[in-house]
Amino acid sequence: MNKGNKFGIHRVIKPVGALPQPAEKIDNTMEIYDNEILIDVDTLNIDSASFTQIKEEADGDIENIKGKMLEIVNNRGKHHNPVTGSGGMLIGRVAEIGPKLKDRDLQVGDKIATLVSLSLTPLNIERIKEVRSAVDQVDIEGQAILFESGIYAKLPEDMSETLALAVLDVAGAAAQTARLVNSGDNVLIIGAGGKSGMLCLHEAKKRAGVTGNVIALDYGYEAISRIKKLGLADEIIQADATDPTAVYKSVQEATDGNLADIVINCVNIPNTEMASILPCRDRGKIYFFSMATSFTGAALGAEGVGKDVEMIIGNGYTRGHSEISLAIMQENQKLRDIFENLYTV
Amino acid sequence: MNKGNKFGIHRVIKPVGALPQPAEKIDNTMEIYDNEILIDVDTLNIDSASFTQIKEEADGDIENIKGKMLEIVNNRGKHHNPVTGSGGMLIGRVAEIGPKLKDRDLQVGDKIATLVSLSLTPLNIERIKEVRSAVDQVDIEGQAILFESGIYAKLPEDMSETLALAVLDVAGAAAQTARLVNSGDNVLIIGAGGKSGMLCLHEAKKRAGVTGNVIALDYGYEAISRIKKLGLADEIIQADATDPTAVYKSVQEATDGNLADIVINCVNIPNTEMASILPCRDRGKIYFFSMATSFTGAALGAEGVGKDVEMIIGNGYTRGHSEISLAIMQENQKLRDIFENLYTV
Repeated sequence: MNKGNKFGIHRVIKPVGALPQPAEKIDNTMEIYDNEILIDVDTLNIDSASFTQIKEEADGDIENIKGKMLEIVNNRGKHHNPVTGSGGMLIGRVAEIGPKLKDRDLQVGDKIATLVSLSLTPLNIERIKEVRSAVDQVDIEGQAILFESGIYAKLPEDMSETLALAVLDVAGAAAQTARLVNSGDNVLIIGAGGKSGMLCLHEAKKRAGVTGNVIALDYGYEAISRIKKLGLADEIIQADATDPTAVYKSVQEATDGNLADIVINCVNIPNTEMASILPCRDRGKIYFFSMATSFTGAALGAEGVGKDVEMIIGNGYTRGHSEISLAIMQENQKLRDIFENLYTV
Repeated sequence: MNKGNKFGIHRVIKPVGALPQPAEKIDNTMEIYDNEILIDVDTLNIDSASFTQIKEEADGDIENIKGKMLEIVNNRGKHHNPVTGSGGMLIGRVAEIGPKLKDRDLQVGDKIATLVSLSLTPLNIERIKEVRSAVDQVDIEGQAILFESGIYAKLPEDMSETLALAVLDVAGAAAQTARLVNSGDNVLIIGAGGKSGMLCLHEAKKRAGVTGNVIALDYGYEAISRIKKLGLADEIIQADATDPTAVYKSVQEATDGNLADIVINCVNIPNTEMASILPCRDRGKIYFFSMATSFTGAALGAEGVGKDVEMIIGNGYTRGHSEISLAIMQENQKLRDIFENLYTV
């Protein structure tokens, strides 16, 4: 059996020296190296941007969608949409574990979700069984490979796959919140009524505790009602996250002028950097989980107002992130009800 | 005297509610509010991207350049290039200090450089005296306003203005390095032979100390020779920062497989995120000072390889950053010689 590279570089066909994610083409031969895991795939969860693009190109026709998906995988050895650059994740059962990974808490037959992007996962599709357009999911017969560095989560027995996937999709945010927030902190969560925002809200209140002050900010009526229903926020602010002055004033009031020790940005719209920077106290921390964050907007924005704040790029991976996030569904029934209502079919 | 907002929002003419930097037009009346500083301007240091654009539009003609600059300031109340979005900084003498700022260590007549962008600084140009095209500098007669949150540095007596400006331009990086690096750390500096990289190299070695291991990485022959001349690096790696695999292998060797505790990215070219992430140890920190950093490239890149690293957005401002950076010129004669040779006319 061949020895593989930790990050899967041994599977890259071109360009040479690249990592599997940016690579144009990778080897999807379904014979494992010593440090790989073979998966029998049940379902692909195509990234929403990618699936929308494929649907449009296929004029919504199911057979055309299937054809387009097979074409991508045939060309690239992975479901890496060449237009959007994005992938998705998959659910399947462990078929074989390389000898180097034998000491992992994983058995052949375990049902897992991969938490690394399909855009770097060697995939072979034998047959597409069903395309569920409404939820961006596609059931297939086929196999995939997980690299040694590839992260995954065992799916829990006590919740539906769709619920677990909704939680795992944003697992990084809650785990980072758990790490950043300390007892007694003033915590501002921007976009607290959204999917990742609600998980952060739970985790922030748990860590900040009774002496802490958790401020939930969102804009829409639905989001604000969800926050009220959860009963976790010490203060609720209804404001537009692209209006830094309004956000700053509200947070000043909510913190008696002290501003926030930690700001967590979970709102997936552009131009919210300044509304995150202004309400943060000097030497405070800002965690940008939003993928709409502009690096230069944040860097130059903080300099422009002379704010000495630590700004952290949201890392989708944090050790134990899937365990922490799935546990929230056990800890908080109200939150689970909202998630089941919103994100499961 | 009118009371001003800390961030200068009181000067924004349109759009209402915006901060001065993104604003289309601000009020450049040279009568100060209670928390502003009036400056008699000597020299504008136009941002390089902005000045190049103006020169091109003016076909290199000096009178046309002057006309274009006056047009920008007349339209916007600030030297905020509408095409590039960028500004620059200025040098001048303090003319008046608002009563709210009287306790600052600053006197009328002090020579200062503003460290906030011209793109948010109210400016009035009476006359353009000289355009120094080669160094993007323009001497004027005119005045400017610094807001309460606006940062500045008093120019030291013992060095030329051009040397001080070269140092202040990248002051944030060295100050952050001073804060992040601990005694005994493995520190990787990517782009260590460049302007910000060399300051970080000095600061990293000072903080990591004799038990630390400072690894300087750069690509070009000139940069590598500068690093050798400085004698600060424990290890020197000549590698392409867009080749993550090569960088990873070299750092593995240089750290006996432990990888870097802190990675500082100072290289202003795109696609160096993975070369910063891979060589960082789990729970290590990566400081992206490069403005060419892609937020999503870093966020998804770390997740893709399952790296639990803290990734920090380089903040141009850190308390004491100008003092720390200017002090390096006093501490390190070799570095000062290189800076004078490269960055002063």
